[in-house]
Amino acid sequence: MTSLLELPAGELLDRFASPDPTPGGGSAAAFSGGLGAALVAMVCAMPKTRTGAPEERARLDAALAWAREAGDRLRALVQEDARAYDAVVAAYRLAKRPDAEKAARKAAIAAALARATDVPLATAEACLVVLKAAQEAVAHGNPNAVSDARTGGVLGFAGLVGAAENVRINAASQAESGVVAVERVEAALAEGRSRAQALRIL
Amino acid sequence: MTSLLELPAGELLDRFASPDPTPGGGSAAAFSGGLGAALVAMVCAMPKTRTGAPEERARLDAALAWAREAGDRLRALVQEDARAYDAVVAAYRLAKRPDAEKAARKAAIAAALARATDVPLATAEACLVVLKAAQEAVAHGNPNAVSDARTGGVLGFAGLVGAAENVRINAASQAESGVVAVERVEAALAEGRSRAQALRIL
Repeated sequence: MTSLLELPAGELLDRFASPDPTPGGGSAAAFSGGLGAALVAMVCAMPKTRTGAPEERARLDAALAWAREAGDRLRALVQEDARAYDAVVAAYRLAKRPDAEKAARKAAIAAALARATDVPLATAEACLVVLKAAQEAVAHGNPNAVSDARTGGVLGFAGLVGAAENVRINAASQAESGVVAVERVEAALAEGRSRAQALRIL
Repeated sequence: MTSLLELPAGELLDRFASPDPTPGGGSAAAFSGGLGAALVAMVCAMPKTRTGAPEERARLDAALAWAREAGDRLRALVQEDARAYDAVVAAYRLAKRPDAEKAARKAAIAAALARATDVPLATAEACLVVLKAAQEAVAHGNPNAVSDARTGGVLGFAGLVGAAENVRINAASQAESGVVAVERVEAALAEGRSRAQALRIL
């Protein structure tokens, strides 16, 4: 299977619009976070800082490293989310086969749902890092690029919200194992919301 | 020049992260809106509706048409924004040439800035349509796809906020011609915020 990020960008949009179950909202959330990370990295990498003070350079270098690491993770998560959801579909299909042993099929569905909950949780947490880096870029970066840094921040926020929707919906189909993931994503969301408010993008 | 949407999606992300002035936040905002439109269209096109009532089908068909039209517009705006900003950079460069006639260079800068304000305004207004279609998809669409519809909505909201940042910054460099664009984008933003709140994505 061709990796989603190898597709021409226009074709990737077509794939999201198509009725196939994947790629869906979880992959779109990861892509949005990756796009936000790219914009924030661009601003942090600019030679010019807000006032030219040396401590600004150090803070922007740190934020650049966060944005790049989160961005790499989010790119991988675009594909991982599609793969995790395909596995859920496959597990439910298996469960419909009359010869499938009851305990085995229950275990297969539970494992697939747990993975399909953990992947968007990872997306949500990486998007939070994008928001954190965006705050540094707005506070200390080139003032001419504030609109790019803020746009990066709001894309990170959108990825976080989208990922949280996916955590909630996949956790709801599970027994107690989903509870911890929901708690973690709600905490990420609360922190993300307050970072987004500080960036004045809500 | 290769169209941005013809680039492999991963390479497009690299282009956003690169220090070149374009593509920047305006193109990223349009892409985010296009991604949101794709998810919303996917949900509206599903045969299953919330309750199966015929009026739901009619509302979803209308929302599908909005999402597709806004999505096509936003795809084109990814490129248009980069082109408009390249023209601003070119106009400022022209203005530095000693032989450039003063009135002509002022006019060139003003024209380029006006275009670089109108393009993100169009992005903002198309993103608002994505939010409107997302509300229909959440209210009347397949309940199993609510997380996709909400994710589409938050991506539309992120595109709207990012586009508004670009309208403001480019309008600020202009004389009074930017005032109307700012008023229009603030109105779009206020409506978008209330739609996003109704979708519970903020």
